Amino acid sequence: MSGATLEERAARVALTWLAEPGNRTVWTLVQQAGAVATLQHVLDGDVPDGRLRSAVKARTAVGDPRRIAEIALRRAERLGARLVVPGDDEWPSRVDDLAGLELDTGGRINQDTRPPLCFWVRGVWPLEATLERSVAIVGARAATSYGAHVATDMAFGLAERDWTVLSGGAFGVDAAAHRGALAAGGRTVAVLACGVDRPYPVGNSAMFEQIIEQGLLVSEWPIGAEPLRHRFLIRNRVIAAVTAGTVVVEAAARSGATQTMSRVLALNRPAMVVPGPVTSAMSVGCHEILRGNPYSRLVTSALDVLEEVGRIGEYLAEPPRGPEHRRDNLDEESALVLEAVPPRGTATPEELAAAARMSLRTVLRRLSLLEVAGLVTRRDGGIALVSEKPPESTDPI
Amino acid sequence: MSGATLEERAARVALTWLAEPGNRTVWTLVQQAGAVATLQHVLDGDVPDGRLRSAVKARTAVGDPRRIAEIALRRAERLGARLVVPGDDEWPSRVDDLAGLELDTGGRINQDTRPPLCFWVRGVWPLEATLERSVAIVGARAATSYGAHVATDMAFGLAERDWTVLSGGAFGVDAAAHRGALAAGGRTVAVLACGVDRPYPVGNSAMFEQIIEQGLLVSEWPIGAEPLRHRFLIRNRVIAAVTAGTVVVEAAARSGATQTMSRVLALNRPAMVVPGPVTSAMSVGCHEILRGNPYSRLVTSALDVLEEVGRIGEYLAEPPRGPEHRRDNLDEESALVLEAVPPRGTATPEELAAAARMSLRTVLRRLSLLEVAGLVTRRDGGIALVSEKPPESTDPI
Repeated sequence: MSGATLEERAARVALTWLAEPGNRTVWTLVQQAGAVATLQHVLDGDVPDGRLRSAVKARTAVGDPRRIAEIALRRAERLGARLVVPGDDEWPSRVDDLAGLELDTGGRINQDTRPPLCFWVRGVWPLEATLERSVAIVGARAATSYGAHVATDMAFGLAERDWTVLSGGAFGVDAAAHRGALAAGGRTVAVLACGVDRPYPVGNSAMFEQIIEQGLLVSEWPIGAEPLRHRFLIRNRVIAAVTAGTVVVEAAARSGATQTMSRVLALNRPAMVVPGPVTSAMSVGCHEILRGNPYSRLVTSALDVLEEVGRIGEYLAEPPRGPEHRRDNLDEESALVLEAVPPRGTATPEELAAAARMSLRTVLRRLSLLEVAGLVTRRDGGIALVSEKPPESTDPI
Repeated sequence: MSGATLEERAARVALTWLAEPGNRTVWTLVQQAGAVATLQHVLDGDVPDGRLRSAVKARTAVGDPRRIAEIALRRAERLGARLVVPGDDEWPSRVDDLAGLELDTGGRINQDTRPPLCFWVRGVWPLEATLERSVAIVGARAATSYGAHVATDMAFGLAERDWTVLSGGAFGVDAAAHRGALAAGGRTVAVLACGVDRPYPVGNSAMFEQIIEQGLLVSEWPIGAEPLRHRFLIRNRVIAAVTAGTVVVEAAARSGATQTMSRVLALNRPAMVVPGPVTSAMSVGCHEILRGNPYSRLVTSALDVLEEVGRIGEYLAEPPRGPEHRRDNLDEESALVLEAVPPRGTATPEELAAAARMSLRTVLRRLSLLEVAGLVTRRDGGIALVSEKPPESTDPI
């Protein structure tokens, strides 16, 4: 939480509901006059943007935006979701780079590239710290087994090295990336184009549950929002902006990946591409980007990716560590394992399993999480609680 | 032939036998004093290069270089091979760019990068015209089926568009490239690291026979020379220098392909690389080049290759045309087909097949060759002899 008033927070929600996120006029007005005054202007039709006026008229015919924001906030609370706005400790400052993004192609979509007004978040990790060392892995829904394998493997390697793997939660490459990070016991973030109460697609529900437990679900859209087609393109600018770099694993010819990559490059982030067989339709888009864009970079592994993001100085940054008070938000199993760790000295995983009355496998999995959270550490061949003083800087490889 | 005397030609052969091709000292002396005087200096031990003096001493213990050159030239004549030296009409002038090649890594090999003193050639095409529009396709001997497929396909596409496909005659990618060009009825050139009388490897003998018929076998080494290991590296500089660009199709990690590509780039030729699955060991070297070298270019097809070589202005060059007197060197089938074409007007391939008493398939194959040679042309739905006046410039795609 920050100095933003409840009224300001609710106004940001209402504005996101009235006009799609990224709207240039709305964002500019909010910067000038704040969200509360902007909401009043927008509702009064007092904006220099005919398209926005029509959109607002259509939306207010459906419902009262202030009332809808209130309901969304109440439902979020029940769901365990939180609203994050600029000025909050966990606001991901990197996303504000979108304020300077000017794409040289015309058209409606490119008008909608301003920073978000707010984020809805599910999961215990602080948003900004989690995104600081993050890489996006995205690609085709119709991934081949090759693409799924590479995405999983790369995500596993990044998560193992304490990097957050971010993706869009879709079938194919996205899901493979999330799952790879989850399998490594690492952090993963799904940025959705709909409400965090109804992550899409439903076929990935079990995975989303695991992401909520082990990482974060994030969206600009209020609780209840549907995954409309155009929202994915708007969402993509956030994927490009909040990460240290983006990797495309598989993409068909002339796919959305090219658009995402032009945003990544416009934001001065590494635009990384995994090559594939030139005989595979699912690699045509990847090779198009590599041939068409001299600043795009070919990557073949997690280590290649770290080399690229390392070039912009992120690589050596401190891994994010969950603050002590996050203990309260731990899942039950992790809390039990943490409780079993002795206050002084160390215990072996086997001793912890005995003390917590859990299987060794579960203990090891939970220990990975607790270690990433900075709550426990390996020392003298055993597990120890992390002391209060800040940890030594760790080598990320 | 040119103004070079027989003595000068024989001296170049003797020098190549005494010291390996590319030797900096020998080449520099030949530039200054001519081959005849240089041979005398070298035999007298009158050279400022201890390594060269030792090598020459060892060689002259084996035989008299002037005598060996004579024998090689006589054997070449019986074989139908010819010697090409600088100043000859068909000397490939592009190879002289090696004179300016300075590689920044030390070591023995990099001392041996000077231009050849001579070429031995088997096949009817004039060497320089054949190489003017040529692309090298090289890669791993242990190619996968993917690599072989891509090399064949790319070579076919280039040959179809009147480009010569050059390679090293080896198993794997090289053979696939030669065969793709042959299948298209196009021109292909094998640059060997041994005498043109004993093309290596023997397992590709049938292919070499077809290359002699439809393209060219080329080597710097005299008739009878063995394919010693170090000769392949020396040979590679010629592949890089005589072509408009080089494509690596598959290469293992830290393979010779990287060395070839650094030469291609040092010569300001397009260094092109076919990507592959990041899970394939045979593509690791390709991805290494693409990641390590900002000037290397990813290519996925013959059209991509033409786009790259087009950038240096070669693409729109006139395709080489066999001069009229090459008729005498035509293989028997081609000569029969050519004879069947009426002096005025046109004939259909079916009519030619009937007149020449050959299968339609054979006629079509020979017509492709005759057309590439500029001896026949397609007109009004039939085949016509090419008139004496120079042909209109043709669109290579």
